[in-house]
Amino acid sequence: MIDPQRYPRLSRIAVPADLRQFPEDELPAIAEELRAYLIEQVARVGGHFGAGLGVIELTVALHWLYETPSDRLVWDVGHQCYPHKILTGRRDSIHTVKQKDGVAPFPKREESEYDTFGVGHSSTSISAALGMAVALQRGGDERRVVAVIGDGAITGGMAFEALAHAGGMGAEPGSEEPNLLVILNDNQMSISENVGGVTRMLGRLTGSRTLNALREGGKKLLGDKHGAPARFVRRWEEHWKGMFVPSTFFEELGFHYTGPIDGHDLPALLGALKTLKTLKGPQLLHIITTKGKGYELAEGDQIGYHAVGPFDPAQGMVKKAAAKKPTYTDVFGDWLCDMAAADPGLMGITPAMREGSGLVRFSREYPERYFDVAIAEQHAVTLAAGMACEGARPVVAIYSTFLQRGYDQLVHDVAIQNLDVLFAIDRGGVVGPDGATHAGNLDLSYLRCVPNMLVMAPADENECRLMLSTGHRHAGPAAVRYPRGTGPGVAIQPGLDTLPIGKAQLRRRGGPIALLAFGAVVAAAEEVAASLGLTLVNMRFVKPLDRALILELANDHAGFVTLEDNVVAGGAGSGVAELLAAEGITLPILHLGLPDAFQHHASREELLAEAGLDAEGIRRALLARWPELALPPAQTASR
Amino acid sequence: MIDPQRYPRLSRIAVPADLRQFPEDELPAIAEELRAYLIEQVARVGGHFGAGLGVIELTVALHWLYETPSDRLVWDVGHQCYPHKILTGRRDSIHTVKQKDGVAPFPKREESEYDTFGVGHSSTSISAALGMAVALQRGGDERRVVAVIGDGAITGGMAFEALAHAGGMGAEPGSEEPNLLVILNDNQMSISENVGGVTRMLGRLTGSRTLNALREGGKKLLGDKHGAPARFVRRWEEHWKGMFVPSTFFEELGFHYTGPIDGHDLPALLGALKTLKTLKGPQLLHIITTKGKGYELAEGDQIGYHAVGPFDPAQGMVKKAAAKKPTYTDVFGDWLCDMAAADPGLMGITPAMREGSGLVRFSREYPERYFDVAIAEQHAVTLAAGMACEGARPVVAIYSTFLQRGYDQLVHDVAIQNLDVLFAIDRGGVVGPDGATHAGNLDLSYLRCVPNMLVMAPADENECRLMLSTGHRHAGPAAVRYPRGTGPGVAIQPGLDTLPIGKAQLRRRGGPIALLAFGAVVAAAEEVAASLGLTLVNMRFVKPLDRALILELANDHAGFVTLEDNVVAGGAGSGVAELLAAEGITLPILHLGLPDAFQHHASREELLAEAGLDAEGIRRALLARWPELALPPAQTASR
Repeated sequence: MIDPQRYPRLSRIAVPADLRQFPEDELPAIAEELRAYLIEQVARVGGHFGAGLGVIELTVALHWLYETPSDRLVWDVGHQCYPHKILTGRRDSIHTVKQKDGVAPFPKREESEYDTFGVGHSSTSISAALGMAVALQRGGDERRVVAVIGDGAITGGMAFEALAHAGGMGAEPGSEEPNLLVILNDNQMSISENVGGVTRMLGRLTGSRTLNALREGGKKLLGDKHGAPARFVRRWEEHWKGMFVPSTFFEELGFHYTGPIDGHDLPALLGALKTLKTLKGPQLLHIITTKGKGYELAEGDQIGYHAVGPFDPAQGMVKKAAAKKPTYTDVFGDWLCDMAAADPGLMGITPAMREGSGLVRFSREYPERYFDVAIAEQHAVTLAAGMACEGARPVVAIYSTFLQRGYDQLVHDVAIQNLDVLFAIDRGGVVGPDGATHAGNLDLSYLRCVPNMLVMAPADENECRLMLSTGHRHAGPAAVRYPRGTGPGVAIQPGLDTLPIGKAQLRRRGGPIALLAFGAVVAAAEEVAASLGLTLVNMRFVKPLDRALILELANDHAGFVTLEDNVVAGGAGSGVAELLAAEGITLPILHLGLPDAFQHHASREELLAEAGLDAEGIRRALLARWPELALPPAQTASR
Repeated sequence: MIDPQRYPRLSRIAVPADLRQFPEDELPAIAEELRAYLIEQVARVGGHFGAGLGVIELTVALHWLYETPSDRLVWDVGHQCYPHKILTGRRDSIHTVKQKDGVAPFPKREESEYDTFGVGHSSTSISAALGMAVALQRGGDERRVVAVIGDGAITGGMAFEALAHAGGMGAEPGSEEPNLLVILNDNQMSISENVGGVTRMLGRLTGSRTLNALREGGKKLLGDKHGAPARFVRRWEEHWKGMFVPSTFFEELGFHYTGPIDGHDLPALLGALKTLKTLKGPQLLHIITTKGKGYELAEGDQIGYHAVGPFDPAQGMVKKAAAKKPTYTDVFGDWLCDMAAADPGLMGITPAMREGSGLVRFSREYPERYFDVAIAEQHAVTLAAGMACEGARPVVAIYSTFLQRGYDQLVHDVAIQNLDVLFAIDRGGVVGPDGATHAGNLDLSYLRCVPNMLVMAPADENECRLMLSTGHRHAGPAAVRYPRGTGPGVAIQPGLDTLPIGKAQLRRRGGPIALLAFGAVVAAAEEVAASLGLTLVNMRFVKPLDRALILELANDHAGFVTLEDNVVAGGAGSGVAELLAAEGITLPILHLGLPDAFQHHASREELLAEAGLDAEGIRRALLARWPELALPPAQTASR
């Protein structure tokens, strides 16, 4: 429970209605308590950190000024939502964040009525908020809708699509202007010293009720907004402002721009928000904040403190001892540098995930071949296609869940043209603590149906490296899909050897059942196969399958079990069944994989166990189908 | 063959090298011949029309000035590429466009070295061209890259992602500015009369070598571009220009803006292009053109003449007699209006496909509930999700192939949150003359793997209407996926009745084989089933499947045949096999569906026959697997 001595005000705030009982002049003190509490709680258990610290004042201001949850507050991406969760009923449970049955790390509709829209992926908030605003307005409902989006997320194309739609709506017949406030939380743009004063002045100026009243009055005086004089005045105003602030960009899309404002200056923020609340139409408030604000170490290392494990607030994060074994991400990062040394045509592309995807070293060693395209998965894929047209060999490093954003580009721009692009897909399969929004449970299904694709899933670290080389050398689109975290710890061979395309690895010959395992579940499957004396194949290739081996094994086995950390629906195992069906072979088959349901957040191991994909679950499923396997095996064989 | 009397110049131009033999002052005459020839040829056989007429002068100018195919020319969307194809080796075959084995309606790499990037979907050109420019520059290659994008296509988020990336590249360490020309072909923006003169003046001014030389010189004088004085000068210049033209938007993204220019004024166009060819860095040339230019009827009806069937050039298109039976698009359009009348919460959303998706009547009758979001599939889906959060019941009308663009939004924003959004998916399965880029061959696979989705495929028009009502009334995400064109012609019942969820329709009981058919292939399957005395099920639901019926039929049949107009990999038939496997049932099964390859353009009927999904193909496949079926059936039964 929260300590009322240390948190005299926050301890009295369970929900925003409590916050709204406090007078305005106590809000800065509440913000300080909220900040201290956030640092204390995240230090206890870890979680997203810097983004939350950056929006402490904004969160307090919004919940104080707006009637949440009746007014709708949409957080983009959502890793900045911890202060919001603390103020909206989850103060005493925030320390369970990311844990099984604990608080979700992102806004989640089933968790709270204050979480109006579930997120995890970026750039969705303006679309969602616009949808809400439109639905409410069409129903004559005057509740307010506010979207908060970062300067990173606003680079995503769909945010632009939403801005352009919202900004243009008033102009079409039958449409009315949406009453929508978009808050651009800008924590990266460096506004240089010499224009800083002007910037602050403009922020105060355009944020004040006076100037906006003037502007509103001016519109009326000058006739409707489509008339020429008003248009000229507006253009004059926006272009004069545009000399100093990035207002014009938003104004051209049809938004009324206010800012920039210091997002840690609560009185200034409240002043601007109060004015904006009185205005109709699409509004954009530009605030400048510091990621990690108020915790010096986090301000100084914004990337390192984006998400943290438990730490001592007085000391900060202690450098982890070097991990005993490398993650798959490390394996990829090393391979990329080694292959870049061997192949001057290699280009590395990431949609704003340099750290997460293991491209830090590559970005330093090969800056001229390193492309961080911002949060822009669609562009990342088609950029690669364009490079491949001119003979380059691009590697798109991407999380499985984010590749969903570039799916059309993968089909339309890469696969149809059979271009030489390698997709290095990290976080395939079960991801874990980040929850359903970050899960990579679908990729084998949505990739396998695409013609021309070569799809691989490694059983261990060394195989991952071999597959990356294989995909890179393969003339055509290829995907290597590997899991989050570490693998079984197989030693990695240097060199850039490749694997024969479409050849599986028979690891263990036994009977009467053959286990055909794909990727990360090979190790658990092998354990079960050994204990029950069964055949085990590390399938390696999801597409194309090893037809010859499958037919051979179908001939002398009584049944197949397919195993994968992908949904069963349309997954790798279904590919095996399709192959048998096409060959006219009828054989009992058991598909083990992820469920046809979105998995909640929990550890990767917990989720795999829940899905029955750990050794115990696999064994249980086998014995349920073939109870006779429990008897001592009549014959065994080793690899 | 082309008539040298009518086309004295064009008849001498087989490839752009021939064009480049002509002096500049003959280019207007060549453009006129090209226009006349395009009208003549498209009138003969039909095809995309208005867009090509709008870029006649641009096409001539580009191929005359640039060294194509060595210089790279990327057309966005591609329906404006007919003049390009005529000038690049396909003059005498353009009349075969869209026909089997004929010229493709879009640029296609396998067809010509002048087609640098295959298209069909919009908004990809800047990404692809940037990739090409980067790959060439990294290799020290000074060839030029030009992307041509329309004002419609530039609304797509990925175009914005690409502009932002290209415009920002010079600023990052290790990166160099890409030498890339983006031509914005603007054929909708109306520039009103009173600023027209200034606009033209500015176009000439900024397009002239003099002003740009001045600007380049100024940069040098004022120090490097990151210095404050140069920045101020640039900002002053761009904001002064921004008073009159939409330059600021592009300048803020880092592009040097030139325009607007009259895109039908060849001398002006050549003047601007010649200057731009001497400049480095990302350039944007804004040209204003008229869709359908030079053919009065097309200028007057730009939507009607976007794509046409054969017509008499002297008369124009003759209004078709009312079709005997409605298309599925018509069925959807009528249902939408009827359901809107019954449900005030219904909202209709289209990503710029009002005509194609059958929303014309709805847009007129319910303008306040009609949302054309521009070419912005991602936003369309999440906008719907936002609406659903506030209790509205949105319907996203979208082509199957374009839903690939909103796949992440379907998963992340709709399905995970189990929101009440209906996807009305037109052009599912085989599409035909538009080729692989427009095929809807994958949707059942990529939808079926998504938890929470209800997926339906109608066998006929009336069932389509029933399914739309079913999906709309269903609390959660639903998809009805129907084919292009007309169905079997079943009479449509008025009313808004629904179907029981997950219940198939047993149409014919026979034996020993049961045909389980999904959607558009039911009719052909029924024909075969009747002729061979087999069982036929119209499955209706791809997800959830009718488990009870499948188990019942598995019990008294010797084998199953699944049929669908989707790829076999992960398709509806695989779902049947997965269900049997999960139940421990071993039964011979034959999956008939589309091939694991991208189909070329041809008529829908030709492609279905090629895939063996017409009655003859189905019959052939059945008899190949079960030759004994050719014998007279031992027992028959009717529906």
